[in-house]
Amino acid sequence: MSALTTRKLLLAHRPSGEVKDSDFELVSSPLGEPGDGEILVENLYLSLDPTNRIWMTDAPQYMPPVKIGEVMRGIGVGVVVASKCEGFAVGDAVAGMIGWQEHACGRPELLGVQRVERIPGVPLTAYFGVLGVTGGMTAYFGLLDVGKPKAGETVVVSAAAGSVGSLVGQIAKIHGCRVIGVAGGPEKCAYVTDELGFDACVDYKKGGLDEAIRAACPEGIDVYFDNVGGAVLDAVLANLSLRARIVICGLISSYNQDSVPGPKNFEQVLMRRARVEGFIILDYGARFAEAGAKLAEWWQVGKLRYRETVLDGGLEMAPEALRRLLRGEKKGKLSLRLSARAE
Amino acid sequence: MSALTTRKLLLAHRPSGEVKDSDFELVSSPLGEPGDGEILVENLYLSLDPTNRIWMTDAPQYMPPVKIGEVMRGIGVGVVVASKCEGFAVGDAVAGMIGWQEHACGRPELLGVQRVERIPGVPLTAYFGVLGVTGGMTAYFGLLDVGKPKAGETVVVSAAAGSVGSLVGQIAKIHGCRVIGVAGGPEKCAYVTDELGFDACVDYKKGGLDEAIRAACPEGIDVYFDNVGGAVLDAVLANLSLRARIVICGLISSYNQDSVPGPKNFEQVLMRRARVEGFIILDYGARFAEAGAKLAEWWQVGKLRYRETVLDGGLEMAPEALRRLLRGEKKGKLSLRLSARAE
Repeated sequence: MSALTTRKLLLAHRPSGEVKDSDFELVSSPLGEPGDGEILVENLYLSLDPTNRIWMTDAPQYMPPVKIGEVMRGIGVGVVVASKCEGFAVGDAVAGMIGWQEHACGRPELLGVQRVERIPGVPLTAYFGVLGVTGGMTAYFGLLDVGKPKAGETVVVSAAAGSVGSLVGQIAKIHGCRVIGVAGGPEKCAYVTDELGFDACVDYKKGGLDEAIRAACPEGIDVYFDNVGGAVLDAVLANLSLRARIVICGLISSYNQDSVPGPKNFEQVLMRRARVEGFIILDYGARFAEAGAKLAEWWQVGKLRYRETVLDGGLEMAPEALRRLLRGEKKGKLSLRLSARAE
Repeated sequence: MSALTTRKLLLAHRPSGEVKDSDFELVSSPLGEPGDGEILVENLYLSLDPTNRIWMTDAPQYMPPVKIGEVMRGIGVGVVVASKCEGFAVGDAVAGMIGWQEHACGRPELLGVQRVERIPGVPLTAYFGVLGVTGGMTAYFGLLDVGKPKAGETVVVSAAAGSVGSLVGQIAKIHGCRVIGVAGGPEKCAYVTDELGFDACVDYKKGGLDEAIRAACPEGIDVYFDNVGGAVLDAVLANLSLRARIVICGLISSYNQDSVPGPKNFEQVLMRRARVEGFIILDYGARFAEAGAKLAEWWQVGKLRYRETVLDGGLEMAPEALRRLLRGEKKGKLSLRLSARAE
């Protein structure tokens, strides 16, 4: 195995605006062997997530920024190809912080990957997507634990056609809420209402956002699950019910901007006695089993629809994949196939 | 009594920027007599509060805006001079929405005033100030119910020399917190540390606000009680502890501005998983007795220091009093004596 090589994408520059290929450096190195307590993982699918863009900056954030010259941080799934670590056998699937690289080698707990208990019939990408931390887990805890919707309340979710938003809305419907999505373009909006079953969807690219939100939520917004920030957040702030809850899960509209104006309708937090709360899924590790079981149950009985876009092109495609994610040029969950061995 | 006249300040124009005398119209009218179920109150002290400025606008807010031509809304205390309402006798003190007028006449519940259970030795202004809704009540519920500080945590409060802020910090000290004030100018800061017993006070007028907040809170800010918004809020957002709580009680820095930029460090709500919650004291009416008893107890044993500025000049002084409040040109709680009968 030591005669083989593997490739990694290192962070070469902190991006300004949209990510460029030249912000990364593609390097090849000999494929090592795992030492005691370590595993060697062949990475199969890389998840593309808005948080990748956060990790590339050195702004204060919820994890240490990726250092210049380090392997770019990324979530995904892989398969164990060599193991000197108890509890991990060759052929096991692992999910977590696999990195923007073809192989990951190290102690599982230091890498930040966990062994996947595979469920028959469930594709590997589901373990970071519909059942995992970049999809279902985030929707589940963010909506239910932070947003605390009650049956009959109006729930609004932005990026409603995306990996997290699509599930937030469906979980809110399961809990008896009226659900309004916000998405970009007629195709995505039709998907949100016709396939996901939301009660309505506002097209933020159409113009008249404030009026459209108001018209869709005549009794005000009780829970807003925010993935985007910016103009959508402001339109929501102008239409809050008393004691509304706003889950700040992401602020994707600002991630490609070096300087961002704050929400101009912020004073409505005071006027409507709203609660605005930041939410990061990694805080919920101790309860992943609870959410995983519930999500799998809903999914298997057809209550959660989910679509994904899997790109090909190998590791060198990752920067372009991230650009497409942040432009919204994808359908549902976006991932990148890293290996021909991926199913 | 019907031969007498009384004066009122009506809202004549919605102000732009700083309030002008001409935004009000001073009118005289015959003093009526109370009808069935009504009381006639001679207003003694008018409380000046940042929320007066909010009520003058027609922006979406937590109560209906004062209409053009209506008596300006204001909190204060008065004495019953005629009563056809059971439970209210001539000579009783009342507190609540007395209005910017020399007398208030109507049903107590429609006026929005309550009978005061006077405590011996307690001055009348205390019933809207240190023990009331423009001081102690707001500090008590905002800090303890919304901020939920724990002993040993770092609490920051803005407008720390003011009516609410001075009490927030002292209540936080009673609960074992490390307390940092933010106030304008060396005199106010010295008062906050030397007389109120805060651990430190940052002078926001001195420059270097971000660095000063950081230096005063090296382990981060656990609870921020915000009365001002603006640059202080941004400096706090840049220095939050994990799962910090931000009580939005007021945003006074913006009240004289027609258009306000939002908090530019808003993304730190996400990064630090902070909770930002709007708070209006009027929601806590059912629990006023609880807070009143606790505040009176602390005050009577000397645990709450409190100072006030009482202006003279009668009703026509009210617009100038509000200007001084919003400029910070006062010490502690600001009120206006409306009657020579006031103690």
